[in-house]
Amino acid sequence: MHTLYDYLPSGNGYKVRLLLTLLGIPYRLVQKDIIKGETRTPEFLALNPNGRIPLIVLEDGRRLFESGAIIHYFAEGTRFLPADRFARAEILQWMFFEQYSHEPYVAVARFLLIHPEAVPPERLAELPAKQQGGYAALAVMERHLEGRRYFVGDAITIADIALYAYTHVAGEGGFELARFPAIRGWLDRIRGEPGYIPITKA
Amino acid sequence: MHTLYDYLPSGNGYKVRLLLTLLGIPYRLVQKDIIKGETRTPEFLALNPNGRIPLIVLEDGRRLFESGAIIHYFAEGTRFLPADRFARAEILQWMFFEQYSHEPYVAVARFLLIHPEAVPPERLAELPAKQQGGYAALAVMERHLEGRRYFVGDAITIADIALYAYTHVAGEGGFELARFPAIRGWLDRIRGEPGYIPITKA
Repeated sequence: MHTLYDYLPSGNGYKVRLLLTLLGIPYRLVQKDIIKGETRTPEFLALNPNGRIPLIVLEDGRRLFESGAIIHYFAEGTRFLPADRFARAEILQWMFFEQYSHEPYVAVARFLLIHPEAVPPERLAELPAKQQGGYAALAVMERHLEGRRYFVGDAITIADIALYAYTHVAGEGGFELARFPAIRGWLDRIRGEPGYIPITKA
Repeated sequence: MHTLYDYLPSGNGYKVRLLLTLLGIPYRLVQKDIIKGETRTPEFLALNPNGRIPLIVLEDGRRLFESGAIIHYFAEGTRFLPADRFARAEILQWMFFEQYSHEPYVAVARFLLIHPEAVPPERLAELPAKQQGGYAALAVMERHLEGRRYFVGDAITIADIALYAYTHVAGEGGFELARFPAIRGWLDRIRGEPGYIPITKA
């Protein structure tokens, strides 16, 4: 069985948990508390030199880190990653958008607000910039989803899973999702997937 | 012919230019000056709603943004992206690492130092944190490259191209590459590829 090292409030980890659950792939969960520095121990750094969750150790012992790489690996050959070359590129486009233009704002704003005890006071000064960047990313998503049901093609893919993870809890980062009706409709569609699990479910 | 919208000092754009050149794929270059806001005009936002270069318009009119998605698309079926499923996942792992843990530090430190005229004074205060994060990413790379010739397998892939783009100009961001002998050897191997072009070459 695969072993997933994860921190349950993490949207990055949730991408992996949600996909594996929707695919019916069993895994063993090892929780690492990033607030307590459990991903920066020598033991963990020997598994992932970048010191972050999620990390998956496949049942044959091979390791992968980076949520995008992990979900791409497991989605291969499933309905979550179509075979068409251009569609695959569009899926990666939105996954890189999520990691570069969305997560560093939407997820970090959420982290600053839900873990004030773990945040040095000067980092709270980043909040306005994080909210500005997060709203910009949400506006790009809203515009793309107007008239579309999913990010790429007409069915759920790992692009949706990647963007869903932190968008559906953006309210915890102070973002008003009420402003984005297309995003809200799309969130409902993801939530309606058979086998859906919430973010803190293992 | 494909049309690449790009800004020549951009490492993200260079990833695309370098790969297309190594592959012998011709393209038309349209330069957009990000300092002058040319990627935030209504015309450009109609092409890329995220307002960033690189953006490629394929000869059939379809558009892709995000450097990682573009180089993955063109590398498909070439020596830069092997067919093995796990190797492909490892390549994406390093490409996501580059966009999340490397570029926001190494590239941003370089931007702050080479474009002081475009940087609000308060952003210069970010430099120490950017250098700390950049050195952390370089240390992860150095450790991985000790005893390896390339990031994944024993030949160049788009993981190397993605990481090469900003690493080889890290000195412009104030990083001392002399501390990283394995990285320096790897940079030399990339630079030795037949058909190699420097960063500001179209």
